[in-house]
Amino acid sequence: MLLNCDLGESYGSWTMGMDADVMPHIHLANVACGFHAGDPLTIRRTLALAARHGVGVGAHPAYPDLAGFGRRPMHLSHDELVATVLYQVSALDGMAMSEGVQLDYVKPHGAMYNQMMADAGIRAAVMAAVAAYHRPLRLMLLATPDARAHRREAQEAGVKGLLLEAFADRCYDDDGALLSRGKPGAVHDRERTLAQVEQLLREGTVTTAGGNTLPLDADTLCVHGDNLEGVRAIEAIRALVDKH
Amino acid sequence: MLLNCDLGESYGSWTMGMDADVMPHIHLANVACGFHAGDPLTIRRTLALAARHGVGVGAHPAYPDLAGFGRRPMHLSHDELVATVLYQVSALDGMAMSEGVQLDYVKPHGAMYNQMMADAGIRAAVMAAVAAYHRPLRLMLLATPDARAHRREAQEAGVKGLLLEAFADRCYDDDGALLSRGKPGAVHDRERTLAQVEQLLREGTVTTAGGNTLPLDADTLCVHGDNLEGVRAIEAIRALVDKH
Amino acid sequence: MLLNCDLGESYGSWTMGMDADVMPHIHLANVACGFHAGDPLTIRRTLALAARHGVGVGAHPAYPDLAGFGRRPMHLSHDELVATVLYQVSALDGMAMSEGVQLDYVKPHGAMYNQMMADAGIRAAVMAAVAAYHRPLRLMLLATPDARAHRREAQEAGVKGLLLEAFADRCYDDDGALLSRGKPGAVHDRERTLAQVEQLLREGTVTTAGGNTLPLDADTLCVHGDNLEGVRAIEAIRALVDKH
Amino acid sequence: MLLNCDLGESYGSWTMGMDADVMPHIHLANVACGFHAGDPLTIRRTLALAARHGVGVGAHPAYPDLAGFGRRPMHLSHDELVATVLYQVSALDGMAMSEGVQLDYVKPHGAMYNQMMADAGIRAAVMAAVAAYHRPLRLMLLATPDARAHRREAQEAGVKGLLLEAFADRCYDDDGALLSRGKPGAVHDRERTLAQVEQLLREGTVTTAGGNTLPLDADTLCVHGDNLEGVRAIEAIRALVDKH
Repeated sequence: MLLNCDLGESYGSWTMGMDADVMPHIHLANVACGFHAGDPLTIRRTLALAARHGVGVGAHPAYPDLAGFGRRPMHLSHDELVATVLYQVSALDGMAMSEGVQLDYVKPHGAMYNQMMADAGIRAAVMAAVAAYHRPLRLMLLATPDARAHRREAQEAGVKGLLLEAFADRCYDDDGALLSRGKPGAVHDRERTLAQVEQLLREGTVTTAGGNTLPLDADTLCVHGDNLEGVRAIEAIRALVDKH
Repeated sequence: MLLNCDLGESYGSWTMGMDADVMPHIHLANVACGFHAGDPLTIRRTLALAARHGVGVGAHPAYPDLAGFGRRPMHLSHDELVATVLYQVSALDGMAMSEGVQLDYVKPHGAMYNQMMADAGIRAAVMAAVAAYHRPLRLMLLATPDARAHRREAQEAGVKGLLLEAFADRCYDDDGALLSRGKPGAVHDRERTLAQVEQLLREGTVTTAGGNTLPLDADTLCVHGDNLEGVRAIEAIRALVDKH
Repeated sequence: MLLNCDLGESYGSWTMGMDADVMPHIHLANVACGFHAGDPLTIRRTLALAARHGVGVGAHPAYPDLAGFGRRPMHLSHDELVATVLYQVSALDGMAMSEGVQLDYVKPHGAMYNQMMADAGIRAAVMAAVAAYHRPLRLMLLATPDARAHRREAQEAGVKGLLLEAFADRCYDDDGALLSRGKPGAVHDRERTLAQVEQLLREGTVTTAGGNTLPLDADTLCVHGDNLEGVRAIEAIRALVDKH
Repeated sequence: MLLNCDLGESYGSWTMGMDADVMPHIHLANVACGFHAGDPLTIRRTLALAARHGVGVGAHPAYPDLAGFGRRPMHLSHDELVATVLYQVSALDGMAMSEGVQLDYVKPHGAMYNQMMADAGIRAAVMAAVAAYHRPLRLMLLATPDARAHRREAQEAGVKGLLLEAFADRCYDDDGALLSRGKPGAVHDRERTLAQVEQLLREGTVTTAGGNTLPLDADTLCVHGDNLEGVRAIEAIRALVDKH
C-alpha cells in the first residue's frame, strides 16, 4: 500500500504544504503542474526533492484556475480537456526526467478529479489524454465499487494501467463515494484515520458513514501534508503500512 | 539554408498567423508554448500540422506575459528563468512526441530573445535551461559577428549545438544587430527581402544600413507568415532557397 | 429599441471585432472587462471610442478564463461570483468615468450569461453583485417568457432595473430560449435577421423554430460586429430601427 | 505620522500576511489589486475589514505577474502602464465605495514602485494614470532627498498630492535610497527599527548606513505584517507614534 500526497502546491511567493517534511514519508508525489498551483521553479524544486528521496512522481494536472486552486468545476470541450491534460503531463515529464526521475502516473486534481469520477465523458477525455501520451503512464482514480468498470474503460482507452486510491482521513458514504467535506464526520481525526488505514491494510475494507463494510480494492492511500498535524499523521500511517 | 517561422501563436478564440498556409513552405516551426501565446489545443493542432508536413519543430518559450505577447522585457532571477524555459520546452517536447514529431531546438521569443542576445547573464540562463534538459536540443540564436563567442559559450554550458538565424526582411546595422523596428528602412519590402536572401545564399553576407558588407554565418532564415503578403514572400524565398 | 454589441474583445496583440466600424451604428457597447478579453489598454481605447460616439457603456464581466474566452461554464461559490462581478464592474466604471462616460448597465458574458439565465442561484449572485455596487446600475438579461419573474427577482435583490434583450440573428425555440448554435437554423441569414427585427419592432414578437408566435418584451437588440458581414447587418438593422 | 501596510496579498487558497491582526494598528492599508496578489474575494474582504477599523485605503497596483508577486521588473509602454494602473485603481475604488470606504491614494507595488523611484519616465506614466483618474487621488512615493522635485513633477502632471513614506525597518544608504535587501544591515531588528522611528518622529531624520544624518520629510511610515514578529513591531511603532 503506497502513500501518495499532493505536493508542489506553492506558487511564487505563496507557500503551501510542508513538502520537505512530507517527502521522506511517502511513496508517490502528485506534483502540481502550474495550472492550479506550482510555478516552474516550484515544480523543479519539488521534482529535485522527490528525486533525492527516491519518491515516485505523478503529474497532478488541473483546470486553468489559479484563483480557485483548480477546485471550481469547469466544462471544457473534449479536445480542450485532452490537450490541457497532455500539456501539463508533458511539462512535468520533461522536467522530471531533467531531474533524474521519471513520471509514473497522472492524478487529476480537485474539480477535474471529482468530475472525472462522476462523469464518464470527462473520464473518457482524461483517459484519452493519458493514452495519447507518447509513453505509457498510469492513471490514478478513486477506488470505488465501480473499479472493475473503470479498469475496462481504461483498457479500451489504451491507458496502461490504473492506480486506485483510498483516502486515509475521509469518511465514505454507503455508495463508496467520499462524504462531502461539509458534512459532519466527513474528515476523520487521527485515531479514526489510523483505524481506517488498519482496516484497509488487514481486510481491504472501510466502514461507511452508515456503518456498513465496504470492500475497496486500493493500491495507494491519499494523505495530506498541509500542516504539522498532517505530517504527524503521515508518519503514523507510514509506520502502520511498513509494519503490515 | 532552412526557413524558420513562428507558429501556433493563436490563443483560444483569438487567431494569429496563417499557419496552414505557411507550413508547406518552411523547414522549421517555432511553436509557441503557452506563455506568450498558444493554448494547449492550439499547440496540439500546430504540432499535428507540422507532423503532417514533415516540418521540424522547435520550442518557442517566452516570458509569462499574454497581454504583452512576450514582447515586454522582464527580469527573472537566473533560477526562475531556467525553470521557466525548461517548463515550456518540456511541455512542447512531450506534446510533440505524442504527435509523432521530436523537438529539435529551442528559440526564445520576443523580449526573451532580445535580452538573450544583449545580455550574457540571460543568455547563460537560457543555455543552462537547454543544457539541463534531459536530451540534447539545439539553441537558435541571432547570427551576429559574435557567433564564435556564442558557440564557445554554448559548448561550455553543455548545449548540444547552435542554430544561427538571419532575418530575411530586416535591415542590419553596421554592428550586425537588427535595425530597430521603429527606424526608417528597418523592414524590407519584398524586393529588398529577396535581394537580401539572394546575397546571403551566394555570399553569406548582408548589406547593412550604413552600406557595409557584413558576413553572417547563418544556418536558417527567419520568415514571417502573419498575413497573405508574408505567405507570398515565404513562397518566393523558398523558391530562391530551393533553386540555390 | 436600442442596439447593443459586445466590444473591446481584443487582447494585447490579438485583435477581435471591428469595433471602430460598429461603434457609429449602435446605442450600447458591452465592454469586456479583462477576464475573458480586454487588456487594460484595449478597455481604455474602447471606452474612449464609445465616448466619442456618444454610445452608452455597459460592463461585460465574465469568468476568469482567457483561454476559453469566458465561454466555458464554471462554478464559483456565491461569494466568489459576487466579488468577481463587482471587481470587473468597478474596473470598467472607474475607467469609463475617466474617459468621460458613465457605466449604465452590466451584461454578463458567455457562460456566465447562459448560466445566469438557466440557474436562479447564479442569477441571484449576479444580481447581488449589481445591487452591492455603490451606485445603481441596470442588469441586462435575455428577454424570455419569464421576464416578469426576473423583474421581481431584480426588485427584491435591490437591482435598479433590467434591460431585456432580444437577439436579432438567432432563432428562438418554442420555450423562448435561443436555439443552440449547433442546431440547423440557429443563426439567421441577413434576410431572416431583418425580418425578425421588423416583427419585433412592429408586433413585439418572434416566430419560433416551431413556427409559433412568441411575445418578447425587449428593450434592446443584441447585434454582432465580428466581421464585415456583421457590420453590414448592423447598419441595416439600425436603419430599420431608426425608420420605425 | 501615519502607518501604512501592504494588505490583501492572499490569493485564492494561498494566504499571506496577518491582515486581521495588523488592521487595528495601522492608519492606511495598501490593498493589492489582483495583478500581483489579491483575488476579487480577498480584495472585498480586505476592504470590508478596513472599513470596520476605519482604516484609510490605497490602491496597490502592480505589474501583471502573479508568479513573481509583482517583484520582477517589467517594461511596459507608457500607454500600457497608464492603462494598467488605471484599471487596478478603478477596480479598487469601485469595490471600496461598495464597502463604504473611499480610496484615498495609490501606492505602486514592488518592481513598479522601485522602477518608479529610479526612472522618471515610469514615474511620469504612474503620475499620468493617477491624474487621469476621474477624481483626485494622492500618490505615495518614497521620501528621498528628491522630494521637492517629485512634488513639482506631481503638480505638473496634475496629481492632487503626494504622500511621502519612510521605512521603519530598513536602513538607508547615504544617498537616501533604501539599502538593498541583500546587504548586511539592510533590515533592522526591532530595537533599531524603534530607534529609527523615534528619530524620525523627533528630528525628521534617519541615520544612514554610512553614519550620516539624513533629513526625510515623511508623511507616513511603511510597516510590515507578514508574521507575528512583524505584528508585534507594528504595535510597538504605533505606541511610539501615538505617544509622540
